[in-house]
Amino acid sequence: MKNEYVSLDTVKYFLNEVHQVQEVLGKGRFQMYDMESVNMFLDSIKAFSDVDLFPYQREMDEKPAYYKDQAIHIHPQFQKIFQQSKELGLIPAIFNEEDGGMQMPNTLFHAAYFLMEAANNHVTGYLGLTTGAANLIATFGSQELKDTYLPKMLDLEWTGTMCLTEPQAGSSLSDITTSATPTENGSYLINGQKIFISAGDHQYTDNIVHLLLGRIDGAPAGTKGVSLFVVPKKKITDNGLEDNHVITAGEFEKLGQRGYCTSHLVFENSEAWLVGEPNKGLSYMFQMMNEARIATGRMGAGIASAAYYSSLAYAKERPQGRKLSSTGAKDLDQEQTLIINHPDVKRMLLHQKAIVEGSVSLIIQASKYLDQELISEREDRAYYNALLELLTPVVKTYPAEKGKEAVDTGLQVLGGYGFCMDFDLQLYHRDIRIISIYEGTTGIQSLDLMGRKVGFHNGKVLEWLGAEIMKEIKSASGHEKLQPYAAQLGQNLQLIQEVLGALMPHAKSGNFEKYLADATLFMDLFGTIVIGWQWLKIANQATLDLNKGKVDQSFLEGKIHTMEYFYKYEMSRTKGLAKTIMNDIELTLDFDLSYLD
Amino acid sequence: MKNEYVSLDTVKYFLNEVHQVQEVLGKGRFQMYDMESVNMFLDSIKAFSDVDLFPYQREMDEKPAYYKDQAIHIHPQFQKIFQQSKELGLIPAIFNEEDGGMQMPNTLFHAAYFLMEAANNHVTGYLGLTTGAANLIATFGSQELKDTYLPKMLDLEWTGTMCLTEPQAGSSLSDITTSATPTENGSYLINGQKIFISAGDHQYTDNIVHLLLGRIDGAPAGTKGVSLFVVPKKKITDNGLEDNHVITAGEFEKLGQRGYCTSHLVFENSEAWLVGEPNKGLSYMFQMMNEARIATGRMGAGIASAAYYSSLAYAKERPQGRKLSSTGAKDLDQEQTLIINHPDVKRMLLHQKAIVEGSVSLIIQASKYLDQELISEREDRAYYNALLELLTPVVKTYPAEKGKEAVDTGLQVLGGYGFCMDFDLQLYHRDIRIISIYEGTTGIQSLDLMGRKVGFHNGKVLEWLGAEIMKEIKSASGHEKLQPYAAQLGQNLQLIQEVLGALMPHAKSGNFEKYLADATLFMDLFGTIVIGWQWLKIANQATLDLNKGKVDQSFLEGKIHTMEYFYKYEMSRTKGLAKTIMNDIELTLDFDLSYLD
Repeated sequence: MKNEYVSLDTVKYFLNEVHQVQEVLGKGRFQMYDMESVNMFLDSIKAFSDVDLFPYQREMDEKPAYYKDQAIHIHPQFQKIFQQSKELGLIPAIFNEEDGGMQMPNTLFHAAYFLMEAANNHVTGYLGLTTGAANLIATFGSQELKDTYLPKMLDLEWTGTMCLTEPQAGSSLSDITTSATPTENGSYLINGQKIFISAGDHQYTDNIVHLLLGRIDGAPAGTKGVSLFVVPKKKITDNGLEDNHVITAGEFEKLGQRGYCTSHLVFENSEAWLVGEPNKGLSYMFQMMNEARIATGRMGAGIASAAYYSSLAYAKERPQGRKLSSTGAKDLDQEQTLIINHPDVKRMLLHQKAIVEGSVSLIIQASKYLDQELISEREDRAYYNALLELLTPVVKTYPAEKGKEAVDTGLQVLGGYGFCMDFDLQLYHRDIRIISIYEGTTGIQSLDLMGRKVGFHNGKVLEWLGAEIMKEIKSASGHEKLQPYAAQLGQNLQLIQEVLGALMPHAKSGNFEKYLADATLFMDLFGTIVIGWQWLKIANQATLDLNKGKVDQSFLEGKIHTMEYFYKYEMSRTKGLAKTIMNDIELTLDFDLSYLD
Repeated sequence: MKNEYVSLDTVKYFLNEVHQVQEVLGKGRFQMYDMESVNMFLDSIKAFSDVDLFPYQREMDEKPAYYKDQAIHIHPQFQKIFQQSKELGLIPAIFNEEDGGMQMPNTLFHAAYFLMEAANNHVTGYLGLTTGAANLIATFGSQELKDTYLPKMLDLEWTGTMCLTEPQAGSSLSDITTSATPTENGSYLINGQKIFISAGDHQYTDNIVHLLLGRIDGAPAGTKGVSLFVVPKKKITDNGLEDNHVITAGEFEKLGQRGYCTSHLVFENSEAWLVGEPNKGLSYMFQMMNEARIATGRMGAGIASAAYYSSLAYAKERPQGRKLSSTGAKDLDQEQTLIINHPDVKRMLLHQKAIVEGSVSLIIQASKYLDQELISEREDRAYYNALLELLTPVVKTYPAEKGKEAVDTGLQVLGGYGFCMDFDLQLYHRDIRIISIYEGTTGIQSLDLMGRKVGFHNGKVLEWLGAEIMKEIKSASGHEKLQPYAAQLGQNLQLIQEVLGALMPHAKSGNFEKYLADATLFMDLFGTIVIGWQWLKIANQATLDLNKGKVDQSFLEGKIHTMEYFYKYEMSRTKGLAKTIMNDIELTLDFDLSYLD
């Protein structure tokens, strides 16, 4: 069944109207960009996605990446995809001109990737990791490292990876043991194993550049002894590329995202070069991880978008049952109705739309703070950076957790067919399940939000976010239809303060376990309110445009309708959540573990 | 990794103590049963599950049922399973002695199947459908049909199926078109196609007996023209079994439950025999469907149980990270802690346990009403039957929807490994997804609950359920620790009345679409409260037993602790749900469908 996977109109509307991307276009590092170039780039990405990505996602699942002869083999379409990505300038996009980059606004960059990920989420990781690895070299590497690696990586002749996880350490990076032994020529020899390495090996570029966390011999224990290295799969020598003993030991067979390889790599005296200073690897890596968190949330939103349009197409074509008559009985003289006419199916579709578009708006919001940071003076930079930092765990988590729910809802629209491999929903259902795990699980993101971010700048950043939200509430109060929603958002904003006020004493008295015990619920609460803010922002703009008599009335009314859905069905969960978090009964701290048997 | 998949102790405790199954043992049709025979039967089922079911679930997924040479081939272990099932008397279990049955209490029957489904959910459908098909023949068939089919089916020499769904009709059984043309000898010739036929074909019995819904030529349109037929795969003739033109046209490749075949059958002049009277097929089938709904919910609970114990075993073995110190920092001098010591992991485990055990208790509760109906006099029969009917859509839906959530939570406990095919969680995640779809989707169950069941006997049945719940509240009020929970349940009971009071006027004024628009949310609300009732019942019994100084203190305390978890984290959702349902803004009825584009 041919169907859409994304609404380009919505992405453009959010970028250009709701989030007023022109406020950053033409300024500072973005001086080469205007609205026309933004829209043209998105059009070319959509065309690329239509032709080279969307038609191959099923095949990439059915013919997944596989391990053979100590190498991983990925779908042949990647050859074309890498070629086209190079022509579209996808890797140089966000880099500085001096490094060969295009200085693209992050809003545009993320919007473009969202389109690609809706079309095929098995692909973009190869590109995103190359960008991320190159970005670490560009930001923290020596001129020599930059000269050696950046041109090849920006040209997609070589791809990149991030090698963090080790079997014994999982998310706990303080426990990694991969060793780095200094050599006489200033390089290091790496020994150790890394698992779950996305894009870790494939046959379509001459080299793969691993950015790896390891410990220099004798380094302190824990995070303070972790350094960052460049470890190429093949060393660059005067005689060309030479094997560097990076052994591909296997491929993890996964529930979903099967076109995207996930490798087990073994480093045996692999030569490596230090990036930046020794023992500062983790702080460097966090720059990359923050980008990766946004990218992960964006990928979740992309998958949920594809699932939404797939279920919408089905609902518009599938006749089944009849509308209820005034007696509550079915009128058999009527033809069967399309299932899209059943209220519960409409609810399931609106539910998906509210989650998908709310997530997309948040991703653009966060990216715009980054763009604003990049073109601002010192004090404003700190302001925008802090807002971005605060929102990052939410950008990662909301589309992951609620996107999963949206895809599940989309599958349900298809009934029995949703469970069949012939339809795409089962694929999205499998694919999206990783998003809550990648780049720090939901539990870890929630600890970050509640344990670090809300207290950032002595709690000032939360006030700043509150002020940003209040701006939207104030605008909405000027539109009669939006007033009740503005009021509801205002109450919810107070709820966050109330919850933190109730729990903060635990943190202050040193009982961090108790303070953080329900961090995951706090994330749900906070994320829902943040998305409520985004929906009010969208509705504000749509109302303005409707009042101006803009042409696409049903498009604009649809945005307001979906906002109302979100407030009725989702924002209504917040009070219960807050009550649970503030409920003082301790149930998840210390208890006899045999209670669980 | 070897781990448990179910708690036999909990099942026995619920059966014998919480639900006092001895109240029906030894009475009426259950006169042959006592507590010793109940426990012995459960022990033998657990031993069978350990040896013949649990070790094969991974293999049944990896080597699924497949279609070849116009036949479906299932895993070879089924030969052993059918043999063992015969020896255990699994098919005759619930039948009358006069039909060759064992008159087993339904509480015991469902408890046993729950154990088997926790061990391997790909298996029991073959047995359950044979039971169901035979039960339709036993209840509504002529003596000749009973004599021809029951002995073979009860002996598992032949299995059975239910043939309802057709490609153009889906859940809308009023639209089925399969035709039945009378022959001169009183039989019928069936022509038509049936899809999604579970257990529709396999190689391990000589014959398969299809119970099929079709229309006798000239029958009225809609549900009033649907009749029930027995259509054997092979006709029984004096010369033995003869082909009956039941063509296996294919096998649906599915996301999960791959060991359980799901067939496409084509009937071409297949000879069939009418069951009961013409045009009454749907009402006969509903008896079967009610049993099947309970069985489906039970299967969901089984899968969620297996996922729970799998994630619990992982959490007890996996070291990662450290406990937070009083400064909120990690103490690297400590060894890594097991992840079960992290509060968020404990929360995820308690969440699963609360859903799994709450579901099991509800299944036993509903089965006990059925047992009580079967041994009661006329008036009491109507009482118990009505309670069973009211609870049936909840028994189907709660373990499906919340079980799905529980399995998802279990997968999350494993982090990246949860997404890997090497671990069982991905399998349970795929398997359980069908439970919300089988036997009427969640949307359909919710229409049944809100559109029919709560108004049953002029609303009296809801009062009866309320009285049953009040009994538990009253008992709990006698235990100091349980008082707040008793009070909370009482308030929630009023909430149901409040919601129905607010919406009923829409039904009375003929606006059924509006009355039912949020039926799925009402199901969530109602189901949560019903499970809250079950948890209070469990906690009442555990408190009594603790006061008596019974030995297994931590087992009993664990039940009370999990009850507290349920009330803090789940019952707290009800007010928000009720508010949403009573929110009068119409968003899912009539609107411009292009809003969704």
